[in-house]
Amino acid sequence: MKFITSQIAALLGGSVEGDANAEIWKLCKIEEGVQGGLSFLANSKYTNYIYDTEATAVIVSNDFVPEHPVKATMIRVADPYLAFANLLKKYNEMQLDKKGVDAQAFISPTATIGKNCYIGPFAFIGENVTIGDGVKIYPQTYIGDNTTIGDGTTLFAGVRVYQNIVIGERCILHSGAVVGADGFGFAPTADGKYQKIDQIGTVIIEDDVEIGANTTIDRATLGSTIIHKGVKLDNLCQVAHNVVIGESTVMAAQSAVAGSGKVGSHCIIAGQVGIVGHIEVGNNVTIAAQSGVTRSFPDNVTILGSPATDAVKQRKTYIYERNLDQLYKRVDELEKKLAKME
Amino acid sequence: MKFITSQIAALLGGSVEGDANAEIWKLCKIEEGVQGGLSFLANSKYTNYIYDTEATAVIVSNDFVPEHPVKATMIRVADPYLAFANLLKKYNEMQLDKKGVDAQAFISPTATIGKNCYIGPFAFIGENVTIGDGVKIYPQTYIGDNTTIGDGTTLFAGVRVYQNIVIGERCILHSGAVVGADGFGFAPTADGKYQKIDQIGTVIIEDDVEIGANTTIDRATLGSTIIHKGVKLDNLCQVAHNVVIGESTVMAAQSAVAGSGKVGSHCIIAGQVGIVGHIEVGNNVTIAAQSGVTRSFPDNVTILGSPATDAVKQRKTYIYERNLDQLYKRVDELEKKLAKME
Amino acid sequence: MKFITSQIAALLGGSVEGDANAEIWKLCKIEEGVQGGLSFLANSKYTNYIYDTEATAVIVSNDFVPEHPVKATMIRVADPYLAFANLLKKYNEMQLDKKGVDAQAFISPTATIGKNCYIGPFAFIGENVTIGDGVKIYPQTYIGDNTTIGDGTTLFAGVRVYQNIVIGERCILHSGAVVGADGFGFAPTADGKYQKIDQIGTVIIEDDVEIGANTTIDRATLGSTIIHKGVKLDNLCQVAHNVVIGESTVMAAQSAVAGSGKVGSHCIIAGQVGIVGHIEVGNNVTIAAQSGVTRSFPDNVTILGSPATDAVKQRKTYIYERNLDQLYKRVDELEKKLAKME
Repeated sequence: MKFITSQIAALLGGSVEGDANAEIWKLCKIEEGVQGGLSFLANSKYTNYIYDTEATAVIVSNDFVPEHPVKATMIRVADPYLAFANLLKKYNEMQLDKKGVDAQAFISPTATIGKNCYIGPFAFIGENVTIGDGVKIYPQTYIGDNTTIGDGTTLFAGVRVYQNIVIGERCILHSGAVVGADGFGFAPTADGKYQKIDQIGTVIIEDDVEIGANTTIDRATLGSTIIHKGVKLDNLCQVAHNVVIGESTVMAAQSAVAGSGKVGSHCIIAGQVGIVGHIEVGNNVTIAAQSGVTRSFPDNVTILGSPATDAVKQRKTYIYERNLDQLYKRVDELEKKLAKME
Repeated sequence: MKFITSQIAALLGGSVEGDANAEIWKLCKIEEGVQGGLSFLANSKYTNYIYDTEATAVIVSNDFVPEHPVKATMIRVADPYLAFANLLKKYNEMQLDKKGVDAQAFISPTATIGKNCYIGPFAFIGENVTIGDGVKIYPQTYIGDNTTIGDGTTLFAGVRVYQNIVIGERCILHSGAVVGADGFGFAPTADGKYQKIDQIGTVIIEDDVEIGANTTIDRATLGSTIIHKGVKLDNLCQVAHNVVIGESTVMAAQSAVAGSGKVGSHCIIAGQVGIVGHIEVGNNVTIAAQSGVTRSFPDNVTILGSPATDAVKQRKTYIYERNLDQLYKRVDELEKKLAKME
Repeated sequence: MKFITSQIAALLGGSVEGDANAEIWKLCKIEEGVQGGLSFLANSKYTNYIYDTEATAVIVSNDFVPEHPVKATMIRVADPYLAFANLLKKYNEMQLDKKGVDAQAFISPTATIGKNCYIGPFAFIGENVTIGDGVKIYPQTYIGDNTTIGDGTTLFAGVRVYQNIVIGERCILHSGAVVGADGFGFAPTADGKYQKIDQIGTVIIEDDVEIGANTTIDRATLGSTIIHKGVKLDNLCQVAHNVVIGESTVMAAQSAVAGSGKVGSHCIIAGQVGIVGHIEVGNNVTIAAQSGVTRSFPDNVTILGSPATDAVKQRKTYIYERNLDQLYKRVDELEKKLAKME
């Protein structure tokens, strides 16, 4: 995408000082200006760079008065920093506004594709898949048979969704996320081996869910693994078979919920937390980073530690532990005194 | 895939009541019935739904007596829940029974492909690769040069196997698994940088191994990283260079074995466990979730904690730690009493 | 690739005894020799295998004297083990010496591709992407719009780089690595939901960086997530938005740095470490495995534990904790004695 400086000025409600037709095709820092680049000057520490920058244009404040000649075209606005951030946002939106079904995508003849979708090269859409309106399926993404993707959902490059999965509307799945791989279920046999238990359930992801890069959500053994509305999962999280995560719960990177675990709504789960299987975490629960949740917890608690317990108590325990050297000394001392007294 | 109700009844050994030619192309819940959908009624709490369901057919018990007219075709069986589960299993098997080499796969002319294989669109099969009989390679999977895949193994969409790897028979690799990336080996240089150590070994995965989604197994520096027969690795696990994992050991999600670590056979490793490099864990060892294994352990032990130790002892330590506030008070008390006595 | 025994002998500075034109196309163990295979005999425990091996050729020591006839062609060298390792290294280099742009890659007409690049089948190169000289882009890799890849960098199969990212020279990104997915940023709304915060920043990866399989590096909210020169990240690591990692720092598998965390240069971070957001870790800091870093630390310290503290102190604390049963007994004893005395 190329723009000219006057277009950008119009977009920002600013005015051009210099070449109103100069072509811009990228954003850059003022100190690393390049031809075709647009930068901004918001911090007076960087003022000196404007005189030498190779950037084609620089967004400056309405009241900026140069002390030397400025080679770059200046776009004057009220708040250069805010203007630049807005520009980034619009730029981002434009870049992500992909449309059209690429000829190099594989789309099963039995699949149904909604209106205004993007399906990129090397994407694979299986049999009987239903894709809603305005869905964006980036290159190299895989959608297994009979899966449904709701309106306005985006699947970035290389997302894998297995067969028979249901994904809601306005969801965002980042690259490398895997939805619907087999749950980890094996029955030990008499000879010490393991027999695979068929994983014939599915995954239901409701509306407005965001799933981070390389996060994995397993299909249920029977029934459904359910991610309720508005849940946000960060990168590299693991959600095992038959887990249920309640509405608007957020989970930071590398956290995991083991098989059949239930997490309530509006919970805040920090990074690297592990929640064991078959327990229930209530609503509005906050779990500190690296906690190991080994039992059920009621609503509205904040927990910490491995094994996790009430966070206030656990923080005190940490202090007691840290000072154990002193406690040992005090006991030594007591023993000595008592020995003398005896 | 489409079926008619009489086919499904025959499959389940049941009888049709209604339209024996009604077309079924998906499974659904009775309360969320849709046209073409097949549901089941096993729990009397859901009986009311059968009169209004939009499902095309419903599996019901032989002794179900409707109190109102039922629009849907009924398939009568002895046990509707079991029948539905069997159907799911057969449906799953059918869905995964892919065959044929897609024209949009890239297959090196020097590769050898066995009989009855599935190779999906956008799969890449490198030079001199050997693929056994009945192997399923889903779309977008990568098989590097000289790699061998044994009979009956399935690689789901987007698995990456680097060059010179050996994978046995009847293995299952889930989406995003990476086998054979370089081990993490660097030699510090005099100027504080790191020089890469060439990772010229390989990975051997024996028969009947299952590898979870986005799990990574690095190639050896020299020699082989070895995953023995029947090992089951869950999602997001990390197996470093030159690790050996013994027969029928299972490892839950997000666990890791560092470089040159050895894990015995028939071990049970829970989630988020870390095993440091160059140590040896015996056979039949059970390791609790989030443990950090920092030294070797013999056969038949159960360990817990970070650093990990005997689980019974560690559980007691957790209790002692949790009650430290009481112990501090008792020592305070003792000091006061003793001070009085002095 | 095929070689004849005389070529290999020339490469190793050795001599051929047997068929100088025998064709070799793979490496194998002497005890698992196959036609076309080259093996080596370095350990006398394996000597017996040489008489029966099906390998086409075996590298042996100059002073090896067979006691029976040897069917395989022998290549004599001074040190067979070293020769074999050198061969592996050269073989590896040759295998990775891919060239040419595959017709089945998708390359946007506005992208710029350097000299001597490899772009494999099903790779996707977006608009205005700049690819330097000698870059290797393996099959099924995704490069988003406006991203720049420096000279000599290798992206293995299935790497995903989002739009507007800058990757330096001589970097190596392993399969499944994701660079530039959205940072995990959401603003809570009055009704208990979350509003996505646009992630409009980027990621800058400097020269000589290696990134492990399935590692994720998020784009900045605004500005840049920066991985400085010579950093080495292992598999399954998480680097959140706006993180900065200093020169030549190494981070082992499954470690994470949360949003806006800063890590200094020349740090050694072991596996499964978590570093919370908005803190600063100094230069030359060593962090033990599974540590949870909850506060800033200065240069040159070694830390351990969750929460992490000075490693020497923490190791003592672990011993104190492990012996708490004894301490409790001592306090019991003291109380009894004192009760008697009172």
